[in-house]
Amino acid sequence: MTIRVGIIGTGLIGEDHGRKLVNVINGSTVVAVTDVNRARAEEVATGLGGAAVFDNGLDLIRSSLVDAVLVTSIGPTHAEYVLACIAAGKPVMCEKPLAPTVHECEQILAAEVAYGKRLVIVGYMRRYDAGYRQVKGALEAGTIGDALILHNVHRNATVGEAYTSFMTMTDSMIHEVDTTRWLLGEEITSVQVIPPKRTPKAFPHLQDPQFAVFGTESGILSTVEFFANCQYGYDVRCELVGSEGIATMTNPRLASTITAGTLAETVPADWRQRFGAAYTAELQAWITGLQGGECVGPSAWEGYAATKVVEVGVEAVKTGARMDIDYIAKPDLYR
Amino acid sequence: MTIRVGIIGTGLIGEDHGRKLVNVINGSTVVAVTDVNRARAEEVATGLGGAAVFDNGLDLIRSSLVDAVLVTSIGPTHAEYVLACIAAGKPVMCEKPLAPTVHECEQILAAEVAYGKRLVIVGYMRRYDAGYRQVKGALEAGTIGDALILHNVHRNATVGEAYTSFMTMTDSMIHEVDTTRWLLGEEITSVQVIPPKRTPKAFPHLQDPQFAVFGTESGILSTVEFFANCQYGYDVRCELVGSEGIATMTNPRLASTITAGTLAETVPADWRQRFGAAYTAELQAWITGLQGGECVGPSAWEGYAATKVVEVGVEAVKTGARMDIDYIAKPDLYR
Amino acid sequence: MTIRVGIIGTGLIGEDHGRKLVNVINGSTVVAVTDVNRARAEEVATGLGGAAVFDNGLDLIRSSLVDAVLVTSIGPTHAEYVLACIAAGKPVMCEKPLAPTVHECEQILAAEVAYGKRLVIVGYMRRYDAGYRQVKGALEAGTIGDALILHNVHRNATVGEAYTSFMTMTDSMIHEVDTTRWLLGEEITSVQVIPPKRTPKAFPHLQDPQFAVFGTESGILSTVEFFANCQYGYDVRCELVGSEGIATMTNPRLASTITAGTLAETVPADWRQRFGAAYTAELQAWITGLQGGECVGPSAWEGYAATKVVEVGVEAVKTGARMDIDYIAKPDLYR
Amino acid sequence: MTIRVGIIGTGLIGEDHGRKLVNVINGSTVVAVTDVNRARAEEVATGLGGAAVFDNGLDLIRSSLVDAVLVTSIGPTHAEYVLACIAAGKPVMCEKPLAPTVHECEQILAAEVAYGKRLVIVGYMRRYDAGYRQVKGALEAGTIGDALILHNVHRNATVGEAYTSFMTMTDSMIHEVDTTRWLLGEEITSVQVIPPKRTPKAFPHLQDPQFAVFGTESGILSTVEFFANCQYGYDVRCELVGSEGIATMTNPRLASTITAGTLAETVPADWRQRFGAAYTAELQAWITGLQGGECVGPSAWEGYAATKVVEVGVEAVKTGARMDIDYIAKPDLYR
Repeated sequence: MTIRVGIIGTGLIGEDHGRKLVNVINGSTVVAVTDVNRARAEEVATGLGGAAVFDNGLDLIRSSLVDAVLVTSIGPTHAEYVLACIAAGKPVMCEKPLAPTVHECEQILAAEVAYGKRLVIVGYMRRYDAGYRQVKGALEAGTIGDALILHNVHRNATVGEAYTSFMTMTDSMIHEVDTTRWLLGEEITSVQVIPPKRTPKAFPHLQDPQFAVFGTESGILSTVEFFANCQYGYDVRCELVGSEGIATMTNPRLASTITAGTLAETVPADWRQRFGAAYTAELQAWITGLQGGECVGPSAWEGYAATKVVEVGVEAVKTGARMDIDYIAKPDLYR
Repeated sequence: MTIRVGIIGTGLIGEDHGRKLVNVINGSTVVAVTDVNRARAEEVATGLGGAAVFDNGLDLIRSSLVDAVLVTSIGPTHAEYVLACIAAGKPVMCEKPLAPTVHECEQILAAEVAYGKRLVIVGYMRRYDAGYRQVKGALEAGTIGDALILHNVHRNATVGEAYTSFMTMTDSMIHEVDTTRWLLGEEITSVQVIPPKRTPKAFPHLQDPQFAVFGTESGILSTVEFFANCQYGYDVRCELVGSEGIATMTNPRLASTITAGTLAETVPADWRQRFGAAYTAELQAWITGLQGGECVGPSAWEGYAATKVVEVGVEAVKTGARMDIDYIAKPDLYR
Repeated sequence: MTIRVGIIGTGLIGEDHGRKLVNVINGSTVVAVTDVNRARAEEVATGLGGAAVFDNGLDLIRSSLVDAVLVTSIGPTHAEYVLACIAAGKPVMCEKPLAPTVHECEQILAAEVAYGKRLVIVGYMRRYDAGYRQVKGALEAGTIGDALILHNVHRNATVGEAYTSFMTMTDSMIHEVDTTRWLLGEEITSVQVIPPKRTPKAFPHLQDPQFAVFGTESGILSTVEFFANCQYGYDVRCELVGSEGIATMTNPRLASTITAGTLAETVPADWRQRFGAAYTAELQAWITGLQGGECVGPSAWEGYAATKVVEVGVEAVKTGARMDIDYIAKPDLYR
Repeated sequence: MTIRVGIIGTGLIGEDHGRKLVNVINGSTVVAVTDVNRARAEEVATGLGGAAVFDNGLDLIRSSLVDAVLVTSIGPTHAEYVLACIAAGKPVMCEKPLAPTVHECEQILAAEVAYGKRLVIVGYMRRYDAGYRQVKGALEAGTIGDALILHNVHRNATVGEAYTSFMTMTDSMIHEVDTTRWLLGEEITSVQVIPPKRTPKAFPHLQDPQFAVFGTESGILSTVEFFANCQYGYDVRCELVGSEGIATMTNPRLASTITAGTLAETVPADWRQRFGAAYTAELQAWITGLQGGECVGPSAWEGYAATKVVEVGVEAVKTGARMDIDYIAKPDLYR
């Protein structure tokens, strides 16, 4: 059974996912697209082998052509589309964030709970990265004892002028919020943000780099350095400190060269290069799950929890103080 | 267009490839299988979702159900099936070796040349490995100057008693024969085999490890250590020495742990773990090529040349002397 | 000219330094020792080839046998001996800390300033470590742009029950205080301590691991994870994040093994193994300097500044709040 | 007791060793020098703090000022000076080779055996390198099982026009001859030389790189790639393949940087940088030994055996054939 996917939002990532669903993923095709920019939607539809172009996301969701929906439009539109998918009883994969506000995320949780079955997954692709999985595997195998501290760095070559200090939390550290929760199996209950010296390479309005310390339910610290304009490439690593050892995720290394006195390994240039395989694995897991009637991927609860942490995190950017984080009770559907 | 593949030989690797063609590769399905062991063929057919089971390979090749053929039966049967595919005008991917004798390989070349179009590819999957590709990329980009020496190690944890000293050449070093030719873009014109001290961990009849020195047209040396019973895992690496630098393929590293005084990286356990992604890439390239009407993969000439080198290599195992290697003229079809 | 050294305090480190001054360092000998434990002093004196055993440190300092003094007694005694050396006009190398209280350090500064010439160096051996020097070299060469963040980890296999939570600051992180100041060339002006989850492997009274964030004059952050009972070995590393790149100090690696599926590098067992060469380099630089009439090594000001930071740091351990740090004006002698 | 050393030959390495004996080594001084270039000898003598300048080596050896002799003159003069030292009953450290001909080495063995006590050591400094020692340690500890193959690479940035193809054996691979014998604890009994493609970066008369395969008494292979003009730096590594694992000596790594998409480690520029610490350790072991009345270092037998191998090796360069190597009976003095 081929899963016929409709895509809402044909920007860079929507097109990228679309190409994978058509050319790489086993068991899916793309039958419908829509975008606020109609011309762009048509161009992408052609590139995907002739998907139908819809006037808007709600029509696409309701179309009988469409078995499952991929939401890759801008964040503020996510809640409306995800809620419509639940109303239509259709599986949906929503790129992060599930929604930019906690209020919207809670509406989605309520709707899905009322529907009684999971339909929603959120695109936290790092959970499908082989390096992160080795770290999680070392923890779960007991190799390193109890988790005590998780150190994260997340560096990006450059960002444009539109990128703001709040986005360090809502767009970037949100990935470490999710990987922290997933690796450790605990909710984050506090956050403090401590600004380092600013790089001269960023626009003046941006606090860059940024440093945050998250605390979890059992007291584990997760430290995060995020650096939007590190210049040198895309560098995501973590070191998990346990009571009997450590597990470290490095940049992937397959080969090296030596020339002119220097042994050199290549560092990834961008997230597509570093996490391309993880995106593929995530999409394949989703599609294979749907073929078997299952909803496989990070749940709406995971989306809610991440948004909750970054909503408080934005306050923490403003205040510099340690902020506590409380959650609604976790519905049985997500246990 | 979905490519309907028929598989001849449903042993371990046939089943593995079959599962990928059904579940992982985009654009293919498996519609037919056959094996000398009928019960095994039926079991694999069921696991692949109900492929038809044929009495023999020739019927499978001729069946109108089948668009393309995968030959994963034992080596001595390869030539017959590949020739039948050419006779039927059907694309065929043959696991290495193309055929165990040079004579059979030459028959295949002649048949394909007579047919006038490439139909045959040979399963040298290492060409699709990202590490090898980085080494080749460094050479082609001019980073390391002219190629002068290629050092290879190829180690395997253990082999069974049936494994013989000649198989170090015909079954194992044949991979380095192919990667040497492919990396350097030259034919191998000589081979000498120099036996090292034997491991006490092998059966007494087996010269293990084995060491060979291949020379190419322009005089580049390619040294190969093959070790069938190295005990510790599967370890394939190479270092290409150029006139201005070197390029080294390491074991892939994504993460490490430190416990009890030791920083540890995991070394692959077997070829499936090390080259699983390369096999997938090779199959996908073949299928995608077929969808576009092209024959993508190592050609019958590559299969012939590798068999030629190992045929002389077996003599070199016996004599210990440096043996020269001559080839038939390369048909235009393979230029 | 051989420098005749007298050693006050013949514990583990005093004996170790003594052996180096006699057997390894070029240009020095040990002529006198003293210790509160007379029997121990006599034993060490014999091991050092027959140094004279003095009743107390003050007599040793005043003895005409002694050209220079090494203070390796317990911290609370440091100030008295260092002040006596200044009074006697004799060069002195004092193991860290210069003195446990800021008040004593200020007395030493005043005495040395009054004397008018530098006599005192403090044993911050990491400044002589080749790895740290490579990181500092990368910064000074402009390779990585402006320093923005320094991440440090400092892990120790186990400590005894006598080790307290304050000692994480006064005995352990004091090393990172010094390397931060030295690498960055700036004073530390704030400190916050954020306790992570405690390891089950420590005595209950001890907060272990510990995490601190230091800020410098220009706003650079220096984060320090200290872990007293990490179990697995001695692991000191740092990563300096600059505006155009990073410089990372790893554990030294000279060789590796692969056995049973694992590539293994040895991690140092203790500080003696990791920093033995740095201690030697520090002692040689001191002795060679004295032969040339110079006082080479971290000055009394460096000792004062480190003690100042950890004195405030102990308050920060208690309060959890970010504490500011002010210094007296830096005397010209130390510019 | 300070060992008063006289140096015969004040070229680059003689001066370097002299400086270490004066400034770094504990227990030695340099009291006498001589050189065919008198002006050079005087300049070096001044730099070493005023050593006496002798007219010739034989006078220096006989002088009552001199306790021990360091021979760092050109190879063809070694035998005369070493024999004179034995005649005078004085300890001598001779830089490699002990002598360039087997005949001379045998004369030295005979003289030393007649004297009845070891006086001679040969400067094979790699035995004092920490990386090589870790490899030997892994073998001796049983970690990797029985030794079967040793792979060596030895690369040098550039050499001058005077360097000849025979010197690849007599001046360069002689180091691998010694480390092979020392690591494995066996004599080398055969050698074959197989020339790779020549680099365009060498003078036309030079076969560069060069490749040799040595065999030992028990059949272990030791492969050596030597590359005189590799351009990129000085790169000496080895991998010892055992029946249960491998031990690999890498270039030392203390730190790395990441800039502009590249993780970089520095590779040594020359032998002084790579093996400076090994030279120091070798000299210190010799001097400390002499202070205790012992002769510590590679013996005249080790010098003889290495010269024997390279003498046959030069024939092997000419013939391309595998040559066998026979030794005289090993005198009891060297057991």
